[in-house]
Amino acid sequence: MATQGQVITCKAAVAWEPNKPLVIEDVQVAPPQAGEVRVKVLYTALCHTDAYTWSGKDPEGLFPCVLGHEAAGIVESVGEGVTEVKAGDHVIPCYQAECRECKFCKSGKTNLCGKVRAATGVGVMMNDRKSRFSINGKPIYHFMGTSTFSQYTVVHDVSVAKIDPVAPLEKVCLLGCGVPTGLGAVWNTAKVEPGSIVAVFGLGTVGLAVAEGAKAAGASRIIGIDIDSKKFDRAKIFGVTEFINPKEHEKPIQQVIVDLTDGGVDYSFECIGNVSVMRAALECCHKGWGTSVIVGVAASGQEISTRPFQLVTGRVWKGTAFGGFKSRSQVPSLVDKYLKEIKVDEYITHNMTLADINKAFDLMHDGDCLRVVLNMFV
Amino acid sequence: MATQGQVITCKAAVAWEPNKPLVIEDVQVAPPQAGEVRVKVLYTALCHTDAYTWSGKDPEGLFPCVLGHEAAGIVESVGEGVTEVKAGDHVIPCYQAECRECKFCKSGKTNLCGKVRAATGVGVMMNDRKSRFSINGKPIYHFMGTSTFSQYTVVHDVSVAKIDPVAPLEKVCLLGCGVPTGLGAVWNTAKVEPGSIVAVFGLGTVGLAVAEGAKAAGASRIIGIDIDSKKFDRAKIFGVTEFINPKEHEKPIQQVIVDLTDGGVDYSFECIGNVSVMRAALECCHKGWGTSVIVGVAASGQEISTRPFQLVTGRVWKGTAFGGFKSRSQVPSLVDKYLKEIKVDEYITHNMTLADINKAFDLMHDGDCLRVVLNMFV
Repeated sequence: MATQGQVITCKAAVAWEPNKPLVIEDVQVAPPQAGEVRVKVLYTALCHTDAYTWSGKDPEGLFPCVLGHEAAGIVESVGEGVTEVKAGDHVIPCYQAECRECKFCKSGKTNLCGKVRAATGVGVMMNDRKSRFSINGKPIYHFMGTSTFSQYTVVHDVSVAKIDPVAPLEKVCLLGCGVPTGLGAVWNTAKVEPGSIVAVFGLGTVGLAVAEGAKAAGASRIIGIDIDSKKFDRAKIFGVTEFINPKEHEKPIQQVIVDLTDGGVDYSFECIGNVSVMRAALECCHKGWGTSVIVGVAASGQEISTRPFQLVTGRVWKGTAFGGFKSRSQVPSLVDKYLKEIKVDEYITHNMTLADINKAFDLMHDGDCLRVVLNMFV
Repeated sequence: MATQGQVITCKAAVAWEPNKPLVIEDVQVAPPQAGEVRVKVLYTALCHTDAYTWSGKDPEGLFPCVLGHEAAGIVESVGEGVTEVKAGDHVIPCYQAECRECKFCKSGKTNLCGKVRAATGVGVMMNDRKSRFSINGKPIYHFMGTSTFSQYTVVHDVSVAKIDPVAPLEKVCLLGCGVPTGLGAVWNTAKVEPGSIVAVFGLGTVGLAVAEGAKAAGASRIIGIDIDSKKFDRAKIFGVTEFINPKEHEKPIQQVIVDLTDGGVDYSFECIGNVSVMRAALECCHKGWGTSVIVGVAASGQEISTRPFQLVTGRVWKGTAFGGFKSRSQVPSLVDKYLKEIKVDEYITHNMTLADINKAFDLMHDGDCLRVVLNMFV
């Protein structure tokens, strides 16, 4: 390989400061060190978590940085000791690592992994606690251990899933975050059974993936809740059977849902990140067994609350990160599932290029937009 | 039977008004109607829920009433259609009914039962929506469907468990509330596995029963938390292996526990009814899988809160009522278990008589007191 062991100069969208337009820059991407993998990112999608950190509201956000965490690409080269992927492998970077060695990975109870968190949480790589991105010698922070808004990125080997090269990268890039989060919330975290009544709050990509997961799990009713009634027609394609717009009701939405469902739903999912909606999602659950899963990410410092009686009378409050999927082990099988059955293409409403990234972020505030996929090399 | 079909006049402790001493009165107890059972209460214990309603803080409390819900006795007579118990059977009244016919009972997911709640919640019997207690014609409300602070009480047939007559009623009366609540929180709601690390907040009867249940489940460490250090010696008998007094620490108690347990406990139980402690109990749980169970009953209107990140990173927040035990089906087997293995006698710190009931309530505020059992016929 001509580039192996060399610094690569390529295009990346750099967030220099919170809430200022990203700038397409020529960045230097250092070669992967021990336990690291350099990936040529071919397609990346935008997710609300990128927008959240970019906005400056994330107290852990570090600038300047290269954002992006929902992508697909090809391994360019690997560092010392990397055995599970090699140059040429098709991969999906995984912001949720899986080392298979730490207390978390070995517990059998969670998909969280502790191995690289101390580095990825502060925008650097484990090996030397430094960044692999720089511009004329000035380091640029990593983000979520992925930084996919760059034509080349360096990730830890525990943060990359090797996938079937048959899969179209411009589609399966979505399996890096939003779609698995929704599907897994249903299949892994809530474990929805056939015949269940399900409520989904927020009909964006994650909410629609919840609906898709619930339909696959055999739910009998899937109630979509959103303040934008235009979303209902599209939501039907993903399995939503009924739609409620809270703006059209005087009563609290949890009461509306309890009344419609003979006491409440079996499972609810909050896919917005709004703490008031999280409360409504819990309280619309059936007494005795209803389980509510928090999927959305709330702004820093915000708190959820309810009366403890809600839990004492049998409701369960949970949350999920990356849908409970173990990233390296299970993303490849999600790709296989995509090749056979699960929807992914249907979430892609816009295709653009890296140069259009600021326009792409603007589009995300539009109710019609689900996922924008950027072609990184056009 | 001389009394069958007759009104019985007997002694009962009547709560005429909130927060005023109970008065031992001669009350008239009407015969059981269809689906009802009249029980001669031989022993009753006092529980904090009685004290809470008596205090006037329970917005659903109705006065005048006959409190009491943790007791044991003998069936005096049964109303029309009652087939599962007969005069002479030894029984434990169950504030948590089990009809085996309603949506809840048939769900297989909860021990809650909806059948008589609409009546017991407002202090009357289902059949005619009236009370069976009166004094010179003035009706006195029932409480929790049990009202065991009376020498005779009338309960619904779905609210009484027939037990082995070999069991000493002066001991197994405790299996009507506190002890099963703690044991069941561990066995049914949390499902603690061998080797787990457990935290118990509050070392009263329910907290000690949690410790006992955790020990039986094979927990490796059982951390007791209480602001009264005197309680530790006794707690050891029930299985507590370590003791923390939050007053002896500057840091928040959840942080103290996280530090002591390499990241947090596997299971925590709040057995006090304090919403701040409920938060600490959740937040001392291990990221990825820690489960916190609310067992204590908070005062009306109070709310629990936390950052949603606590749940998104894998903690689970639950609650339990009567420890998830199905009352009529499972109380008899708890009695059998008592005859072989589980502790009950050890919770009884005081034996008194019905006449001493106000003194008994005073004792409950004393850290040395666990359960006071009243002999109703001395």
